[in-house]
Amino acid sequence: MSPRLEIFGIEGIGEVRPRDDLAGIIAAAAAEHHGGLRDGDVLVVTQKVVSKAEGKLVAVDPDDPRSHKALVEAESVRVLRRRGDLVISETKHGFVCANAGIDLSNVELGYAALLPDDSDRSARRIRDGIRARAGVEVAVIVSDTFGRTWRRGLTDVAIGCAGIGAILDHRGTTDTQGRELLVTEVAVVDELAGAADLVLGKASGRPVAVIRGVDERWFRTSSVRDEIVRDPAEDLFR
Amino acid sequence: MSPRLEIFGIEGIGEVRPRDDLAGIIAAAAAEHHGGLRDGDVLVVTQKVVSKAEGKLVAVDPDDPRSHKALVEAESVRVLRRRGDLVISETKHGFVCANAGIDLSNVELGYAALLPDDSDRSARRIRDGIRARAGVEVAVIVSDTFGRTWRRGLTDVAIGCAGIGAILDHRGTTDTQGRELLVTEVAVVDELAGAADLVLGKASGRPVAVIRGVDERWFRTSSVRDEIVRDPAEDLFR
Repeated sequence: MSPRLEIFGIEGIGEVRPRDDLAGIIAAAAAEHHGGLRDGDVLVVTQKVVSKAEGKLVAVDPDDPRSHKALVEAESVRVLRRRGDLVISETKHGFVCANAGIDLSNVELGYAALLPDDSDRSARRIRDGIRARAGVEVAVIVSDTFGRTWRRGLTDVAIGCAGIGAILDHRGTTDTQGRELLVTEVAVVDELAGAADLVLGKASGRPVAVIRGVDERWFRTSSVRDEIVRDPAEDLFR
Repeated sequence: MSPRLEIFGIEGIGEVRPRDDLAGIIAAAAAEHHGGLRDGDVLVVTQKVVSKAEGKLVAVDPDDPRSHKALVEAESVRVLRRRGDLVISETKHGFVCANAGIDLSNVELGYAALLPDDSDRSARRIRDGIRARAGVEVAVIVSDTFGRTWRRGLTDVAIGCAGIGAILDHRGTTDTQGRELLVTEVAVVDELAGAADLVLGKASGRPVAVIRGVDERWFRTSSVRDEIVRDPAEDLFR
């Protein structure tokens, strides 16, 4: 039987502020608007609200682009490319992305939101908080919007996860012809993050999506840092 | 009101062979197992069955790896990196991927499936075929599995599309603070292709997924070649 996924954004999550109980807010909104969360739901939480709840806001001068630029430099450990205002760099977390993942949209004027210090830990905290508040076992993905080399447009990917394997490894399984599969490692957390973006959008005010129906065999201890972030030594493009 | 997506794989699509009527096969299987396709459904069709139906199969000697290697070279216009057996190249279609998109799994032993000559055209043909056979207006995405720089694991992305905008452009829209959005171009066809992979998998024998509930404002004439493939001149990593 084919799996069937259902994906929807959680209504009623208002503006999130430093030290807010994000897990509690999510659980309450899901209970009020969607009949509650269920065991096995995958929650995709966009980075911006995680950063806000964790107080990762810093003041920037909206009239001075150098203020934003200095922040990008401070959050980067290595710059890969520059063109005009665009900087592609490796952040201290190991992500390679534009402008060190610092984005000014959907943040109060005069502030910028930095990436969480450890998005895998952020995901674990939300997962633990949901268990404590709603008594359900969910998986959590923290997502952010990254560009890609060679392909135009941005997609949402996972920068942290908890309770779900970042990579689904098909090694040892065979295709319909009984031949061993060459494509062995699928980044399911990135596919889930992108799927969630389809119902969230960038201007919706909905920062959290639920993906229901995910194969329970995918649930395990994992992290984006350990499984997705590519070791620079094995990277052909750094 | 938040959009709600439903994603499922179509059951009952058997082995696809050269000159098969792929649109007819998909429409019949959807009618038999899922109550039929509906206006506004997005069909994600994996590249392998498109290539098979279009006869893009070539003989390779399964005992001679040079045979596969020569094919990869023939399908590439430019090699970006090599490491061991891995070749990252630009294909004649403009895609940058491993091994020119040629994969031996789920193909009869002794054969390899090449990418379709023009996957956007393939998508248009399937869309037209579904309209002719089932009387419904669907969007079609042809998907393939690509790796990424800097991130481990593979995800499914779009190599062709019809009836849906490849890129969703937020330019001119504002965030919840009334500020113009910086993230303006979202590659929704890639997010849809990745979402479909979550219900298809690599060894399932299910090559086509339906995504139901996609915002109808996203439906328009478009192509992956025109909107997603990045012009080498504007590419920072080529």
